[in-house]
Amino acid sequence: MEPCMMTAAEAARAIDEGALGAETLMRSCLERIDARDAVVKAWLAIDRERAIQAAREEDKRRLYGAPGLLSGLPFGVKDMIDTVDLPTTHNSLVYQDHRPARDAACVARVKHAGAVLLGKTDTVEFASFGRVAATTHPMNPAHTPGGSSSGSAAAVADHQVPFAFGTQTGGSLIRPASFNGIYALKPTWGRVSPEGMKLLAVSLDTIGWYGRSVADLTLVARAFRLTSGHDEAISLSDIRVGICRPPQWSAIEPAGVAALETAAARLRAAGANVSDVTLPASFDAMSDAQETVMETEGAVAFLDLVEHDGHRINATIRERVAPAKLDSPATLLHAYRTAERCRAELDAVFGDFDVIVTPASRGEAPEGLMSTGDAIFNSMWTLLHVPCVAIPCTHGPKGLPVGVQLVGPQMGDARLLRIASRVARIIDVEG
Amino acid sequence: MEPCMMTAAEAARAIDEGALGAETLMRSCLERIDARDAVVKAWLAIDRERAIQAAREEDKRRLYGAPGLLSGLPFGVKDMIDTVDLPTTHNSLVYQDHRPARDAACVARVKHAGAVLLGKTDTVEFASFGRVAATTHPMNPAHTPGGSSSGSAAAVADHQVPFAFGTQTGGSLIRPASFNGIYALKPTWGRVSPEGMKLLAVSLDTIGWYGRSVADLTLVARAFRLTSGHDEAISLSDIRVGICRPPQWSAIEPAGVAALETAAARLRAAGANVSDVTLPASFDAMSDAQETVMETEGAVAFLDLVEHDGHRINATIRERVAPAKLDSPATLLHAYRTAERCRAELDAVFGDFDVIVTPASRGEAPEGLMSTGDAIFNSMWTLLHVPCVAIPCTHGPKGLPVGVQLVGPQMGDARLLRIASRVARIIDVEG
Repeated sequence: MEPCMMTAAEAARAIDEGALGAETLMRSCLERIDARDAVVKAWLAIDRERAIQAAREEDKRRLYGAPGLLSGLPFGVKDMIDTVDLPTTHNSLVYQDHRPARDAACVARVKHAGAVLLGKTDTVEFASFGRVAATTHPMNPAHTPGGSSSGSAAAVADHQVPFAFGTQTGGSLIRPASFNGIYALKPTWGRVSPEGMKLLAVSLDTIGWYGRSVADLTLVARAFRLTSGHDEAISLSDIRVGICRPPQWSAIEPAGVAALETAAARLRAAGANVSDVTLPASFDAMSDAQETVMETEGAVAFLDLVEHDGHRINATIRERVAPAKLDSPATLLHAYRTAERCRAELDAVFGDFDVIVTPASRGEAPEGLMSTGDAIFNSMWTLLHVPCVAIPCTHGPKGLPVGVQLVGPQMGDARLLRIASRVARIIDVEG
Repeated sequence: MEPCMMTAAEAARAIDEGALGAETLMRSCLERIDARDAVVKAWLAIDRERAIQAAREEDKRRLYGAPGLLSGLPFGVKDMIDTVDLPTTHNSLVYQDHRPARDAACVARVKHAGAVLLGKTDTVEFASFGRVAATTHPMNPAHTPGGSSSGSAAAVADHQVPFAFGTQTGGSLIRPASFNGIYALKPTWGRVSPEGMKLLAVSLDTIGWYGRSVADLTLVARAFRLTSGHDEAISLSDIRVGICRPPQWSAIEPAGVAALETAAARLRAAGANVSDVTLPASFDAMSDAQETVMETEGAVAFLDLVEHDGHRINATIRERVAPAKLDSPATLLHAYRTAERCRAELDAVFGDFDVIVTPASRGEAPEGLMSTGDAIFNSMWTLLHVPCVAIPCTHGPKGLPVGVQLVGPQMGDARLLRIASRVARIIDVEG
């Protein structure tokens, strides 16, 4: 097997056992990119020599000391996140020459754990409503890979890199995972430092990552002390699964219905304790609340940029985060209170269920690149601050993947990963 | 009057009327610093030539176009906040050579409004539990000016700069204002972009500013669209004042009691509608909740720094934000739920009151520099996300100032500033 085809967890084991070198793995990833980049276009910046040199350095380092948890693993970084080694453009005309003085906290963290920066991945401008990434769907270049973490999702799906950071403010991590048939973790809000991530909406912005297995997600999660990763396996009989058709259900496509029903059927067939869960009526207001929070906090984040450099940012951003939104503080306050009430109500729901299984996207990836799809099945969970794991499940009418997402209680990241590890092999029969 | 003695609002008016130039004002501030810095030690970095040049440039700019709202006003920046023109050290050994590639959002904002960076002010290491600033109290160098925004508060109090940015995660803005006899605004959490501020605790960190009048606070607030500043004056009879002895009342000192009672008596004497307000019992848990949030979110923010560079950061920080705190997610969740419940209960309190008047500090500034005082009368309000305005009121037994704070409902920044403008001249009889 080409090293680039290994999952992060497989590669980490091979490196640990001395069967694979960091430089070999990096070169394999770069060759895969050479072969595929003209079509997939996942990357905004790669410094090949620096990446190979850093991998070689990590190979040396392992000779002389205890290797880090992620020793030798190449990783990609959504270009919303600062890197000192490569430009950080946010896919914005304003930031084309931006060279941050320090790595973002998440980048520094995994580098210190031995991971090796491969490159920066394309993103929707400012991870919001702006110009799209050039990235195409790895299985069909006429389709979007989703967004805004377009490049990170496509690169991991296409075996160009074993793991990559993305961000989610609406549905920018989980939806692309569903479209590309890969795994993603959006941790509990606040549990991974957002320092060095371009601010969009302070109470929503969440850094997460893509991998090709739950073990990959867990491995990176250990670097952030989200889990020890050493918990014993959880028994299927101990997992009360709630199948959730959320208030936004009317937006579902047949392929999205099929994915959720298939996941439920597979879990039932495996003997899991599966029942439907209905969210309280107050959740009906959550999609609107998330939009209000995103746009009003966005108006805070972009106030100076829109007023001072507005001609160089996308017109849709200018409109969605218009400074005038700051003149309706009561609207934002109402959205905050809606979210706070629903968080407490969701705690009660998790008294009866260990995990919620719910759509990760409306269906498969839409055709064309101008839209990255709809965050309608993600945005509520982002505002709820709960951890979400995307798991591949089925394929839609065009043969593209459709996933589902597992949702756990706020701060329950460690247990959600354990549950995901147990149910992923049931839901993702090809995985 | 020396230009440096003018408030920000007075200087802005003089500049607008052509009676004062930006360069003249900057030179006056620099002379004041020359005369006082050996004692007060408010500044970590000043580039005199650059500051004078920038002021002169602003004078030119005003000849050719519409001047910005803050045209020609020198400002200070707590060294927790990124500046591209001057180093940003966080008073940390790790960051001594740090030169950010961009200004923090708040710095860019006021520069675009015409304000001129004077310098960076000293701070407690990482605005938290670390090594203290060298700054002394301008009225008595044997006393702390408070912290962590030590330099910003002392510089504004000592007429070295008309306004300055600080930050508050516990009580780092409001408490030093009380100690130094000046005004401060801590806006509603999330209403001023924290981009480019060193992260300490994501759901608490708040950027605010010091001035020497409510008009100063309002002027800067207009740059952030917190208020239009053009609302008509509010009548005293329309302000229902609640005098609040919070659950932490047992920590109050006689000078703190005197300040609150004096403020209440002055308001009553002026004919205001004043009564006592008692907070619901759930607020008893708020101080502990704030400490849990600060330390656990702090553990997120400093995870990599503590584990990778721990020997270069203060031992107290290492202990307070120890990575092991991340292993108790349920404790943090409980603190979040306590805060969310109290926010809703405080909304109800503000059905009966327009403003709460409550202690800004235990009393006057303590002797010595090793402690910057206690945040016990501030931290709850920070976690509640509500706007707070510090107003000077009395003097303590050592002749040092003691203020009170006005608290408004979350998102009610504009109205709180209007109320503050009306009541400040009653509470601050010397102002």
